[in-house]
Amino acid sequence: MTKFQALAQKYGTPLYVYDFDTIDTKFSALKEVFKARKSLICFAVKSNSNLSVLKHMAHLGAGCDCVSIGEVKRALVAGIPKYKIIFSGVGKRDEEIEEALQNDILMINLESEEEMNRVEMIASKLGVIARISIRVNPNIDAQTHPYISTGLHENKFGVDLDSAKRMYIHAKNSASLDPVGIHFHIGSQITEVEPFREAALVLANLLRNLKALKIEIKFFDVGGGIGIQYKDETTVDLYAYAQSIFAALTGLDVTLVCEPGRYLVGDCGFFLTRVLYEKNNGFKRFVIVDGAMNDLIRPSLYQAYHAIDVEGKEDHATSVCDVVGPICESGDFFAKNIALPALEHDDLLIVKSAGAYGFTMSSNYNTRTRVAEVALEKGEDRLIRQRESFEDVIALERAYL
Amino acid sequence: MTKFQALAQKYGTPLYVYDFDTIDTKFSALKEVFKARKSLICFAVKSNSNLSVLKHMAHLGAGCDCVSIGEVKRALVAGIPKYKIIFSGVGKRDEEIEEALQNDILMINLESEEEMNRVEMIASKLGVIARISIRVNPNIDAQTHPYISTGLHENKFGVDLDSAKRMYIHAKNSASLDPVGIHFHIGSQITEVEPFREAALVLANLLRNLKALKIEIKFFDVGGGIGIQYKDETTVDLYAYAQSIFAALTGLDVTLVCEPGRYLVGDCGFFLTRVLYEKNNGFKRFVIVDGAMNDLIRPSLYQAYHAIDVEGKEDHATSVCDVVGPICESGDFFAKNIALPALEHDDLLIVKSAGAYGFTMSSNYNTRTRVAEVALEKGEDRLIRQRESFEDVIALERAYL
Ligand SMILES: Cc1ncc(COP(=O)(O)O)c(C=O)c1O
Ligand SMILES: Cc1ncc(COP(=O)(O)O)c(C=O)c1O
Repeated sequence: MTKFQALAQKYGTPLYVYDFDTIDTKFSALKEVFKARKSLICFAVKSNSNLSVLKHMAHLGAGCDCVSIGEVKRALVAGIPKYKIIFSGVGKRDEEIEEALQNDILMINLESEEEMNRVEMIASKLGVIARISIRVNPNIDAQTHPYISTGLHENKFGVDLDSAKRMYIHAKNSASLDPVGIHFHIGSQITEVEPFREAALVLANLLRNLKALKIEIKFFDVGGGIGIQYKDETTVDLYAYAQSIFAALTGLDVTLVCEPGRYLVGDCGFFLTRVLYEKNNGFKRFVIVDGAMNDLIRPSLYQAYHAIDVEGKEDHATSVCDVVGPICESGDFFAKNIALPALEHDDLLIVKSAGAYGFTMSSNYNTRTRVAEVALEKGEDRLIRQRESFEDVIALERAYL
Repeated sequence: MTKFQALAQKYGTPLYVYDFDTIDTKFSALKEVFKARKSLICFAVKSNSNLSVLKHMAHLGAGCDCVSIGEVKRALVAGIPKYKIIFSGVGKRDEEIEEALQNDILMINLESEEEMNRVEMIASKLGVIARISIRVNPNIDAQTHPYISTGLHENKFGVDLDSAKRMYIHAKNSASLDPVGIHFHIGSQITEVEPFREAALVLANLLRNLKALKIEIKFFDVGGGIGIQYKDETTVDLYAYAQSIFAALTGLDVTLVCEPGRYLVGDCGFFLTRVLYEKNNGFKRFVIVDGAMNDLIRPSLYQAYHAIDVEGKEDHATSVCDVVGPICESGDFFAKNIALPALEHDDLLIVKSAGAYGFTMSSNYNTRTRVAEVALEKGEDRLIRQRESFEDVIALERAYL
């Protein structure tokens, strides 16, 4: 029995498995290329928010990039020090801003003047000084899926250079704001260094302008977005990536902040699902599995590719098929037109690179209970999230029946 | 204060509100056009699975079309009689089949020969006779979004006519199977009668062939799929719809089964969300609201249109904007390029026709807690699902930290 077969038997399927050792390798590689500077790696919680994953990040010394007060609370519960927590996002509710300020996190990342005004108002009401950063939209095309491209002016994210400058001046003169950071994030699953280099140059330039105005920014946040290999993409060379940012920062004394999500956890994750039936309707071969789009929506939502391994059937003849789930939508698929050997009831498939934007986007659609999550660490496996039960799913409705 | 403003104040936002009186009207209209025949309307639970919605359906006399054992259990908990419950879906796990048989529901809808074999095996093991129906794929183009079109051979759904016939003969001769139904479902949000008419003709023909083989089918299930008006679609004329099915059934003594989801609940639902900020980046106007794609994914997943009303600002001048949520993805939007008046913090927007495939597809992405659901009935409002708390969201992980 393979390791994955044993895990499937022990914990049931569908199942998410995360190899924490892979996270360590990824984290160290990034720290290494950044070593010429002070750096803080803030893991993007949205990509995988499991509390044990965050706790592991805390052990590695990582901070967290959060986009809701829920994510900030997760980070705190998992033991991430408050001075390593950033709160980003285009739309923050007043209560969220208030709670973030009360928790005294590292900084709040602002995405509009309107938001700055609310943060200032709330900070002043609470009698605290809000450390802020401003997300600048450098209008750079990151060449990725339109849904995860965020660095163009047609997107809702960040502010342009002129607005940013105006906002920094306002913040500098405000009794309730302390401008400590500058930020860009131009998209996700980026596979080239060039867009990062361009964005870093644009922002470093603004930093020099601000310096001339006696506005000293301490944190230079280059966002996330480092792509991984799902299929045959060439990925960003980490050393070249770091060097292109360092080059932009020449002469500036700043701490480098980076917010990778997918890069740190994408490859560490495996989605295990069993075959229910093979079905051939004379026109097409379908492998119907017990996992579905509610468990992993990336193929459906982003037309994303995930490689799929069959456990224990390597050298059989293959034929082309679609791997689909039980949900009554044609959009419920994991792969289209891939070659797999003949499969039987209970055979185990491994959907790879499922560690980022997998479980966090899962839902109860079709009243499917959300799956369990398991960590692998130094050869040991352990449950890190219990499989949901039917009772869990109806708990908030039952009382009103 | 408008009714919706009062609800937003009482229950908070974002919020789903369902007008149960609208469900009554829709249900009666369908029953009315079906009145020349025995009919059973089985509400498609996947479209809105709230227990109180299902209980309301039970009061109206509806059954339920379920696509997971979780949905079957919801229907039972809500008081739907077991003899009005159908279990459909392309991929059923053994435990699901077993539990459905033990609960003695009306029928299990089969989508492949492989599935029939498993149902037969499990029924025989349990010593029961499984009442079954077969989903026939009539290879008809329902002219809808590819993700919700299900009647073509390139889809994973149902079996072709020849296989269906073979399966019926097998079932008739099996000691553990009782073929009682025939079924098609060609897609969702269909706005013309023609595809229904064609599918009904194809299946009625098969029924006559089966009759000649002494296989008497009792239930003729025409699936769901009746479209609603999201924007300016003309919808199916219900009378013509029913008549086209009746015409196909001439001389056949069957109970008509229909499985509408969207038609019954789509229009009854409203998604209430408040404005956080307006943001104009010089290129585009964005209205940033407190609701997001995790609450209502249809615009993002299906490029679906939802009309949006502004409460209490009807006669102001409007300008074009995108209505977007706080999630850090460009795919997080409710509307693009629509005309709205100038808006301020706390203004209330109503996203319409949100009763189907709204809450059921919602997730905790970005650690956003799922919203509350409220029923409106004869002028009275009541909570039917409590707003999720942060503690609810981490409950299944906390113990493993
Ligand atoms: C502000 C911000 N930082 C970091 C990330 C993480 O991106 P990735 O997972 O591509 O590294 C995102 C993703 O959307 C983001 O919006
Ligand atoms: C088998 C089956 N029946 C009924 C429905 C309900 O469809 P609608 O909401 O379009 O009426 C669906 C939807 O996917 C379905 O798959």
